Amino acid sequence: MENMVRVALDAMGGDYAPKEMVKGAVEAVKERSDVKVFLVGIEEQITKELSQYTYPEEQIEVVGASEVIINDEPPVNAIRKKKDSSIVKAMTMVKNQEADAFVSAGSTGAVLVGGQLIVGRISGIKRAPLAPLIPTTKGVSLLIDCGANVDAKAPHLLQFAKMGSIYMEHVVGIKNPRVAIVNVGLEEEKGNALVKETYPLLKNCPDINFIGSIEAREIPNGYADVIVCEAFVGNVILKLYEGLGSALLHKVKEGLMSTLRSKIGALLIKPALKKTMKDFDADKYGGAPLLGLNGLVVKIHGNAEANTVKTAITQCITFGKQEINQKIRDGLDQEGTVEQ
Amino acid sequence: MENMVRVALDAMGGDYAPKEMVKGAVEAVKERSDVKVFLVGIEEQITKELSQYTYPEEQIEVVGASEVIINDEPPVNAIRKKKDSSIVKAMTMVKNQEADAFVSAGSTGAVLVGGQLIVGRISGIKRAPLAPLIPTTKGVSLLIDCGANVDAKAPHLLQFAKMGSIYMEHVVGIKNPRVAIVNVGLEEEKGNALVKETYPLLKNCPDINFIGSIEAREIPNGYADVIVCEAFVGNVILKLYEGLGSALLHKVKEGLMSTLRSKIGALLIKPALKKTMKDFDADKYGGAPLLGLNGLVVKIHGNAEANTVKTAITQCITFGKQEINQKIRDGLDQEGTVEQ
Repeated sequence: MENMVRVALDAMGGDYAPKEMVKGAVEAVKERSDVKVFLVGIEEQITKELSQYTYPEEQIEVVGASEVIINDEPPVNAIRKKKDSSIVKAMTMVKNQEADAFVSAGSTGAVLVGGQLIVGRISGIKRAPLAPLIPTTKGVSLLIDCGANVDAKAPHLLQFAKMGSIYMEHVVGIKNPRVAIVNVGLEEEKGNALVKETYPLLKNCPDINFIGSIEAREIPNGYADVIVCEAFVGNVILKLYEGLGSALLHKVKEGLMSTLRSKIGALLIKPALKKTMKDFDADKYGGAPLLGLNGLVVKIHGNAEANTVKTAITQCITFGKQEINQKIRDGLDQEGTVEQ
Repeated sequence: MENMVRVALDAMGGDYAPKEMVKGAVEAVKERSDVKVFLVGIEEQITKELSQYTYPEEQIEVVGASEVIINDEPPVNAIRKKKDSSIVKAMTMVKNQEADAFVSAGSTGAVLVGGQLIVGRISGIKRAPLAPLIPTTKGVSLLIDCGANVDAKAPHLLQFAKMGSIYMEHVVGIKNPRVAIVNVGLEEEKGNALVKETYPLLKNCPDINFIGSIEAREIPNGYADVIVCEAFVGNVILKLYEGLGSALLHKVKEGLMSTLRSKIGALLIKPALKKTMKDFDADKYGGAPLLGLNGLVVKIHGNAEANTVKTAITQCITFGKQEINQKIRDGLDQEGTVEQ
């Protein structure tokens, strides 16, 4: 049991909970013997779902939590008041080192707040960035930070770059990941005050492979592996990615349905197009980690199904085995404490 | 001649200059009798192009300028040193009220710098925002500001909202345009310091139809007509729009070429898809105006062809006839001088 990574899964979070959460957990433990999954949530519902499957029973444990935090609730309130919710209970397990990682498809706000308030940051880490993987034409890039802490300062962005590099190298498996900062031009003198202040810190940091600025136009082309930005900008990039992608596909579909000729064509291209669009999907690399906490917190999409849950659990195993948080701590020690 | 709008066109700017610039000017004056176009640039080249066409000759005049500012030049330097360039010369005509508007497909940087240094801002306007139209599933929205002035302050954004509203209503023809501010959530308390400070200014401004925050996800759906943001964020949105659009289309094309079946389908859908994608093109509404200057400055794409040039010239006619700058000045008077 010592080498087992322990994952607390929010069985009640997401559009298809608990069904797909439980299914994903079962699939994960069937595939991997080095993980134990705690299914946290309403015991009766979880047990009922679980009863449909055969699986190595010692690898799944149900942990009862009677409350559920929903998406519309103000996160700070929800975390403070719903002490017996699946999110609060599972995060408390991470805090108490009864679990190494937490995975949730529930309220992003609650996960972000709970990460800070319950799990807590690694000593010396000033901000815990949310770092989703975004699809590119070449694979995937880590966009750090897309979280709730806007108006970050330059030393925070330096920490993001370092944590992001460690994550991409040891969890996603990109050797010597290229780090770039989101900017309005490529020249070093370009940018707003924050970027101008951050640029030299990144340039002079020996721990990362800094390649300079990245214009938003180049993000979808996979020009960099770790894309550093302040959370407001990251949020805009992430949401525009989602919105523009679906708007364009909607337009394409509309065009395909416009004539008889194109309707026939649409039938012919459907399988190939579906495969291509699946390639352009970051979910297969796991969920978005909230980095710099005393334990791993992973946010997956609200519409996540079993396969995404399984991938996220696998991601937690890699994170645990690679001792990512120890590597983050080592990085801090080398540099001394980063000022606020 | 009194009701003629006078447009100084940078005949040397863009990938297809002077050929497509001259052609666009000819097409414009053939269609509209209420415009005079000054073709500014290397006289010999322009005259040679012009000689291919018949057109109302009193509506086109060639203005010689021996130098050309190229895209790679540092803009401030270029504007200061190349006094006989098409951009500097044409902008000087606007400054001296020999022309009402300036159109260029040349260096964006030089156009932005020249707008500020040569044409100059309307008294009381603190910043001149670049406001491109971006395509949405429902038509087009004005994204203001995407220019070079990063780190704007709340009163600047209020001016952007007002100028953008006037432009959308009187040039693009959207009645009572909906104004929204780019934000990371919809609630009034969400946002970074700048957005939190700007939100109440917009909410309490009687001159605009403020509908609240807009998340980047909703931008492509045409949720608002005037999208207010600070230039760094606007630049990221504009460039990601371009980059993600072409990356997705590249992926779709790749998918279409992957099997024989999909190749046949691709042939069938091509005409319908082409038409759809053309609908998703903001160029048909004209170029990006640089607002708040003593005269109109319009930036069109570097790869602009005659049709885009013609549309931009038509846009200048509307701008002139609608007396947009007078409306902007009136707006300032009502509110008193806006503080820095």
